[in-house]
Amino acid sequence: MKPYLKLDPWNIVEEDFQPHLHEISESIFSIGNGYMGQRANFEESYSGPSLQGSYMAGVYYPDKTRVGWWKNGYPEYFAKVLNSTNWIGIDIAVDGQPLDLASCKVTDFTRVLNMKEGTLSRAFTAEFEGGKKIRVDAIRFVSMARQEIGAIRYAVTPLNFDGILTVTPYLDGDVQNRDANYDEKFWVEVAKEFGERDAALTVKTKKLDFHLTSVMAFEVAKNGEAVKLETEQVEKEKYVGFRAQIEAAANEQVVVYKYAANVTSRDHGLGQLIEAGRAALRSALEAGFETLYREQVQAWADKWRDSDIVIEGDVAAQQAIRFNIFQLNQTYTGEDDRLNIGPKGFTGEKYGGSTYWDTEAYCLPFYLSTADSSIARNLLIYRYKHLEKAKENARKLGFAKGALYPMVTMNGEECHNEWEITFEEIHRNGAIAYAIYNYVNYTGDIDYLGQYGLEVLAEISRFWEERVNYVAAKDQYMMLGVTGPNEYENNVNNNWYTNRIAAWTLEYTLEVLDYLRENEPSRYRELIDKLELTEAETSKWKDIIAKMYYPFDDERQIFLQQDGFLDKDLTPVKELDPVHLPLNQNWSWDRILRSAYIKQADVLQGLFFLGDRYDLETKKRNFDFYEPLTVHESSLSPCVHSIIACELGYREKAYEMYLRTSRLDLDNYNNDTEDGCHITSMAGTWMSVVYGFGGLKVQDGVLRLNPFNPGHWTSFSFKVMFRGSRLKVTVGEHDVIVANESETAAEVSVYGKKHTVHGLSHVKIEHALQG
Amino acid sequence: MKPYLKLDPWNIVEEDFQPHLHEISESIFSIGNGYMGQRANFEESYSGPSLQGSYMAGVYYPDKTRVGWWKNGYPEYFAKVLNSTNWIGIDIAVDGQPLDLASCKVTDFTRVLNMKEGTLSRAFTAEFEGGKKIRVDAIRFVSMARQEIGAIRYAVTPLNFDGILTVTPYLDGDVQNRDANYDEKFWVEVAKEFGERDAALTVKTKKLDFHLTSVMAFEVAKNGEAVKLETEQVEKEKYVGFRAQIEAAANEQVVVYKYAANVTSRDHGLGQLIEAGRAALRSALEAGFETLYREQVQAWADKWRDSDIVIEGDVAAQQAIRFNIFQLNQTYTGEDDRLNIGPKGFTGEKYGGSTYWDTEAYCLPFYLSTADSSIARNLLIYRYKHLEKAKENARKLGFAKGALYPMVTMNGEECHNEWEITFEEIHRNGAIAYAIYNYVNYTGDIDYLGQYGLEVLAEISRFWEERVNYVAAKDQYMMLGVTGPNEYENNVNNNWYTNRIAAWTLEYTLEVLDYLRENEPSRYRELIDKLELTEAETSKWKDIIAKMYYPFDDERQIFLQQDGFLDKDLTPVKELDPVHLPLNQNWSWDRILRSAYIKQADVLQGLFFLGDRYDLETKKRNFDFYEPLTVHESSLSPCVHSIIACELGYREKAYEMYLRTSRLDLDNYNNDTEDGCHITSMAGTWMSVVYGFGGLKVQDGVLRLNPFNPGHWTSFSFKVMFRGSRLKVTVGEHDVIVANESETAAEVSVYGKKHTVHGLSHVKIEHALQG
Repeated sequence: MKPYLKLDPWNIVEEDFQPHLHEISESIFSIGNGYMGQRANFEESYSGPSLQGSYMAGVYYPDKTRVGWWKNGYPEYFAKVLNSTNWIGIDIAVDGQPLDLASCKVTDFTRVLNMKEGTLSRAFTAEFEGGKKIRVDAIRFVSMARQEIGAIRYAVTPLNFDGILTVTPYLDGDVQNRDANYDEKFWVEVAKEFGERDAALTVKTKKLDFHLTSVMAFEVAKNGEAVKLETEQVEKEKYVGFRAQIEAAANEQVVVYKYAANVTSRDHGLGQLIEAGRAALRSALEAGFETLYREQVQAWADKWRDSDIVIEGDVAAQQAIRFNIFQLNQTYTGEDDRLNIGPKGFTGEKYGGSTYWDTEAYCLPFYLSTADSSIARNLLIYRYKHLEKAKENARKLGFAKGALYPMVTMNGEECHNEWEITFEEIHRNGAIAYAIYNYVNYTGDIDYLGQYGLEVLAEISRFWEERVNYVAAKDQYMMLGVTGPNEYENNVNNNWYTNRIAAWTLEYTLEVLDYLRENEPSRYRELIDKLELTEAETSKWKDIIAKMYYPFDDERQIFLQQDGFLDKDLTPVKELDPVHLPLNQNWSWDRILRSAYIKQADVLQGLFFLGDRYDLETKKRNFDFYEPLTVHESSLSPCVHSIIACELGYREKAYEMYLRTSRLDLDNYNNDTEDGCHITSMAGTWMSVVYGFGGLKVQDGVLRLNPFNPGHWTSFSFKVMFRGSRLKVTVGEHDVIVANESETAAEVSVYGKKHTVHGLSHVKIEHALQG
Repeated sequence: MKPYLKLDPWNIVEEDFQPHLHEISESIFSIGNGYMGQRANFEESYSGPSLQGSYMAGVYYPDKTRVGWWKNGYPEYFAKVLNSTNWIGIDIAVDGQPLDLASCKVTDFTRVLNMKEGTLSRAFTAEFEGGKKIRVDAIRFVSMARQEIGAIRYAVTPLNFDGILTVTPYLDGDVQNRDANYDEKFWVEVAKEFGERDAALTVKTKKLDFHLTSVMAFEVAKNGEAVKLETEQVEKEKYVGFRAQIEAAANEQVVVYKYAANVTSRDHGLGQLIEAGRAALRSALEAGFETLYREQVQAWADKWRDSDIVIEGDVAAQQAIRFNIFQLNQTYTGEDDRLNIGPKGFTGEKYGGSTYWDTEAYCLPFYLSTADSSIARNLLIYRYKHLEKAKENARKLGFAKGALYPMVTMNGEECHNEWEITFEEIHRNGAIAYAIYNYVNYTGDIDYLGQYGLEVLAEISRFWEERVNYVAAKDQYMMLGVTGPNEYENNVNNNWYTNRIAAWTLEYTLEVLDYLRENEPSRYRELIDKLELTEAETSKWKDIIAKMYYPFDDERQIFLQQDGFLDKDLTPVKELDPVHLPLNQNWSWDRILRSAYIKQADVLQGLFFLGDRYDLETKKRNFDFYEPLTVHESSLSPCVHSIIACELGYREKAYEMYLRTSRLDLDNYNNDTEDGCHITSMAGTWMSVVYGFGGLKVQDGVLRLNPFNPGHWTSFSFKVMFRGSRLKVTVGEHDVIVANESETAAEVSVYGKKHTVHGLSHVKIEHALQG
């Protein structure tokens, strides 16, 4: 597909209405506020192809599992991200002719996602059959300041006629999920209520009884003056609306303001829903559109203050990185520890679930560095709260003890059903353990270990203890039948990454136990009792650490991704005829599996996580072996390769890898953006810049930077929050400036040399690495 | 489940109507004639749980594939065995009260499957609400002599009242498959036609346009005298019937004879269907029920003459082995080379498809030994006809040349969709090659090789050539990412069986090429041209044969099922707490996969096929290692273990293995007989007796026997057809009698010593092996 969006540092801009691209734009122009969000569907009716999507975080549907061949252990349902009541709807008719961009002639169309301010706007001229023309200017946002509130300003101007406008703002709960397994509708109506100024619709899910109440009100102004109108109530199954008629002369602008509050039974008692919705709506109405808008701009300014990356000299790169950051901030704000980061955020319904290992492996670093540490902590608490379900999951799969976190989940229960992933991609447990280390290492919040961390670590360690297999003949522990991060291998024995992260978990758990014994003895005893942790268990863990088997090739001195990897045909990707790429669209599954081609960083993922433990030569040998075999058909892969390439000084390769993710959705590289954006991989893009080009690491409580300018940019800068300080790191052509934008002094090591950066001051360091 | 069927040498007898067992009985009491068949559904309406099943061989439905996660290479459809027009239906009402065994009180119930004669009969007394009682005696069969004809004699006797019987014989095409993927009905109506004496219904499948015309007629007799009746035509969507009323006094027997012809567009032109059906029906009517019945008895007598096994001193074993033979003869008669042996035959719809590797690996020996060699030949021709589709299948999976036969098929196209089986269980190709060898070796029909065999062998060899992987570092060929016969391992490297059967295929193909070059030089040249077979290819095959890698354990001197097998926990099955068994009901899939437990003979399957090439010590070492790890959760497993155990002199083990299959369905061991019977494994049971206890082998054109009496029987005998002679081998307590029932003299080797058995005479040999 030819890129069709205009380059701009702060905005995503579409300048022509192309119906065949509309679903892609619906994904890209999505807006959200962590609590709710939606695709860029039109307010007025649209009869062309469109994927309707309005989502409430944490509200999902357990759709009955669909499989070809059932396997013991499969879950009964798949938790679907749930398309919910359409609250943006405003039907427009001009002298009885409905506005529908699929049938009108559309000119002067623009759609703008203003990332700086968090608004979606659209303007166009529509010509109806018969020749009447109107101009529409619409803007809307979901409020970052008031999570339950959305607001729309929808202006219509007759251009070449005087006539009657009919406007019908409505709430419509009669919606569907496109990927429902059995084409069911998931919502049923509970109640409809009309107030003097508002209309409320309550619907609930057929299963689990999630209730959603939407309340809306609207106001109309003509030429800047409020207009009082007769309104007619419109009522249908799962639908409430108002209909009003306004006379408008040519060039008179009629503005409809629509406000909606969406409240759910996740936050309010069932009996309080309507009142809660009305109260939120009332307060929004009192504030009015301008105030809500100003709040929005301010809330986003705060986000950007903490997380912006500026790239000078490359507007495409600038736009792309901001788009990634913008989507991450829209998807998860960290205020609710029951929520997580869905693979498509609020931009689509595909893949379901809200939580994959992506959160711990890729997203956590972004939130650690760009938001208060409580946000990242909430991501950890989320898993802590699911610990009991993870234990149940392990029991269900036949383990006598320990916890296996699900591959995909909404509420802690597994909802994925493909044996080679669901049952075998157990390395996810390692990433969840690693995230605890990562969080504590970054923030210094060592209290977390005694409060929550150890329990999760111990139960994961128990899982590994039972999952490994002692091979007496070799006096070694092995792990059979797993799928590693590289999903282009299934059911392999001794995936290096999985064995390594398992043994690492045991090491870290023992280390945490030692720490607690020494430093928090009473909490330590409490936890030992609670966990019923025995000496026999920890001894066994030590034995496993000592005798874990790691596949290794003596000749090449590299870790082997798994047993037998070298028996494969090792022809590098670049010697493959490109007609075969991407493999996942051109090769049958068995061919992919028996090839050496790697979907996603696997050994390198381990070398990234445990980077401190491996020297550069080891990383180099493994990178040189695996990178030529990697096809990066997971959006989560290039960032890890980019970061290691930076460390190895492979700058061109690092930049090439960076480019593969940064505009993935904006340029629809994978030809699937219409399903939604690749939210979690956006955190990988951020990591490529900050961990890769910025060379960020935290060791022994010190923030270390090793930045270089990849050479395609005049300069770039990024923000890092670290233990109370907020730093802006600017990497120019010749020097690096670390500016402390907070009042808390920070110790920073740049190119291995420590600097103290006092509050509201900066240090400037000559480049040590030449780009 | 407690066994509920009465033991009897020739009959399957159920003496009590137990509705909760009805679906199991519907499977077990199924009747068929190779062309059509049906479950033992009742003629009269029955509102209790029942799986309706009436099947026409080769008439199937391509049901849209259902999967959880699509993989490239999956087929678009799964070919379903198709439940077709119910032609047995006869509704009965007594003074307006419908007969329905779910609501009447049923006494004196018997259901009998007469295996000797090929009939299903049923008798019962039914008491209606209000107290009226009738006696019903029903018998039906599908004619072995006239494949399109079925006949029913349904007698009703009022016992304690004079009243009006209403009988409604009908044809009902408004039927469903229980395992339809999307709950669709597969048939639509084409035409209904009433003649003077008959009614015809033509339906066609929604896809593929299979047409089925059923034509029925009925006659009524009272007290043995034909009765002329007023009949009313009954017509509904996809339904035609007649309704008639008969006065019957107490103890007057009213007999309804119903005849049906079922003809399909597989055998007749679309325009000729009704006429073909009527002609067949007319001829059946002219013959009348008694004649049709006599023909049936005679046809089955011929079957039994050729295939019976007699076991003296153990009626349960006698009944079981006859049941297995009966079902095999019902399922496939070999007259139509477009047909094959479905996993459930005509006894159920589950699993779909008609052809698995079961046919070549397990069923072929039965038909080779118990029927004219043209029957087995037709099974081979079936695959020959599918060669082009098998080549397409290989192309679809990315192979530049060669043929990969489907895992499951109806028409030659793959219709299975589970990657680890569909794409990886490629050993099936080896079984298809082996069947050619087996057939030629058994029958001596060496002309088959030039006519058909070589083409199949060469294309399969080409597949193996491309599928193996040359590992330069080891100078060996390997085969990565396969699933062997043991489906409790998936995606393994170097499954010994698969590597071995692949290399064997290449060897045999080269041998056949040599034979043809020497003996049929002009046909040889024709085939080389047709196949465009090059010297480079055959050289490569030789190289692969020479350098194929076979996993082997030096210490134990055993073949390894696959790379890494010895890294598993090798605790034998008998040390496992039996609560875990069967594993497939108690363990999650990953646990099964990483265990060493074997579903089905794998290495041993290879040692069975290629038994001539391995000495007894090798077989013993491998058997001793693998048998204790085998759970036999495939019905196809125990027969192979039984046969090898016989060879090794492990007689108790052999008998134990035999018992596991012989009454599998009669005693519903696997708790799934309600879905249908395990037809293909019945051939394995037959093999256990003839190849196992009988020790049958054919080497160098000589039939070799090495029989022993397993010791639980007074004696046993089996029939073997071999190169024109028909032998009956009786194994008594002290001797073996080989009787030649044909006029063709036979050379037979018994216990390694050759005997000539002249036509219509016998030889008697003392036991060499003591039981």
